[in-house]
Amino acid sequence: MKIENLIAQIHKKKSFLCVGLDTDLDRIPRHLLKEEDPLFAFNRAIIDATQAHCVAYKPNVAFYEAYGARGWESLERTMEYLNAHYPEQFTIADAKRGDIGNTATRYAQAFFKAMDFDSITVAPYMGRDSVEPFLAFEDRHTILLALTSNPGAFDFQTMKVGDRELYREVLATSQGYRGAERLMYVVGATKAAYLREVRELAPKSFLLVPGVGAQGGSLEEVCQYGMNENVGLLVNSSRAIIYASDKTDFAEVAAQKAGEIQKAMEKELVRLDRA
Amino acid sequence: MKIENLIAQIHKKKSFLCVGLDTDLDRIPRHLLKEEDPLFAFNRAIIDATQAHCVAYKPNVAFYEAYGARGWESLERTMEYLNAHYPEQFTIADAKRGDIGNTATRYAQAFFKAMDFDSITVAPYMGRDSVEPFLAFEDRHTILLALTSNPGAFDFQTMKVGDRELYREVLATSQGYRGAERLMYVVGATKAAYLREVRELAPKSFLLVPGVGAQGGSLEEVCQYGMNENVGLLVNSSRAIIYASDKTDFAEVAAQKAGEIQKAMEKELVRLDRA
Repeated sequence: MKIENLIAQIHKKKSFLCVGLDTDLDRIPRHLLKEEDPLFAFNRAIIDATQAHCVAYKPNVAFYEAYGARGWESLERTMEYLNAHYPEQFTIADAKRGDIGNTATRYAQAFFKAMDFDSITVAPYMGRDSVEPFLAFEDRHTILLALTSNPGAFDFQTMKVGDRELYREVLATSQGYRGAERLMYVVGATKAAYLREVRELAPKSFLLVPGVGAQGGSLEEVCQYGMNENVGLLVNSSRAIIYASDKTDFAEVAAQKAGEIQKAMEKELVRLDRA
Repeated sequence: MKIENLIAQIHKKKSFLCVGLDTDLDRIPRHLLKEEDPLFAFNRAIIDATQAHCVAYKPNVAFYEAYGARGWESLERTMEYLNAHYPEQFTIADAKRGDIGNTATRYAQAFFKAMDFDSITVAPYMGRDSVEPFLAFEDRHTILLALTSNPGAFDFQTMKVGDRELYREVLATSQGYRGAERLMYVVGATKAAYLREVRELAPKSFLLVPGVGAQGGSLEEVCQYGMNENVGLLVNSSRAIIYASDKTDFAEVAAQKAGEIQKAMEKELVRLDRA
């Protein structure tokens, strides 16, 4: 997907919500377990119910891999469904891959070609030649981990290398990679004030922000520090939406939760328009 | 697998060779393409032919993912075959995963439980809570990326954080993680002299060393700097073995290549015994 199309969708839907599909057989409503493919049945219902309120879906690949080849089929089926019925939705493979050149190319093929994702999350530790094979794909986007929202983020990401923290070094260095215009970054909302520093180094890039809601970040703060003139934000919510109810009304309740977040986002977008 | 069993196998076979299964439909012998599962047919033949010369197999997960659910089935089938016929072989999922707690647990289940791998490679960027869920599994091993063998390793891994390089910080910090006795590390052979510094920080840990042979490192240097009293090394070779011939004699030639490396390793082990 071209980035202009994503931006247009955000303005059209007045939403920059990404719904995370962390689909777990232990947490989906019991009545779905009799379906032939319960993971897909759940995803389809969630997607149909929430798509009016969001602009992106982010399957967390680990949850599918945990079920082996069958789980992988559920993921493929979910992507086929999304691309066939809602091609305007931006899709993110939350895979956090990272490996050397020829291996990175394989991962890129798996997610961009075989499954037709618009984007994938990638880890930066192995450097340039582990990231550029993803950036080589036209109209696909590589979402590099910068500052994550977990406690372990403080183990290495915020360590000083020279005069700045490692995550800022990752931002600055990666902006020089070939195809950097197709880079986005993961920046955790639990550290909203850091977003200001991120914006200094990557003023134009889209940021994927996890950790609003269940993990505790504030949407208002994220927007205050992280928005740019193209909005430049995708804010993810997974469990707070998809597991809001574990009864037969799960899709309806998920839609309601997604709608509430969309309303809050609409207010922030109005504020941006006025600024 | 218990680490003592791996050490015993190394002494028994006089080898610390790991054969990398980077199995690629574009590179395997043409006559295998008519098999129902060419990836598995190739792997089975390579395993049967080389197992006497090595102590470990390392499927590179990207190569299977690139073929979607079908590729994943080939990987599952390869693991079933290995565990059924050669349970003495140490198995490594070269997956380089890394994600927050509950997601990391899913990856651990996928590789340690569903597929019964002995170990998995993991990226350190997200810190403690992205690594400890893997370390929680008894008799399974987590192989953390420290210093990789690709050019991009110099982007971040060798940057100074405080008074030491990031990869040394990763080594030192991770040694304090819960379950650190089940940690191993990836250390590239293209930088053999670094192995001495690695040994200062992780004297007891096993090191997985890629980059001997095709990527240019010297086995003698790796042993000189990297061996400890338990050998403490697994040296990987992938393409130089498995793609040594693309004819019908591919398995035979692979066995021959693996045998040559084993002989060289035997010399190094004799040197260790004398020291």
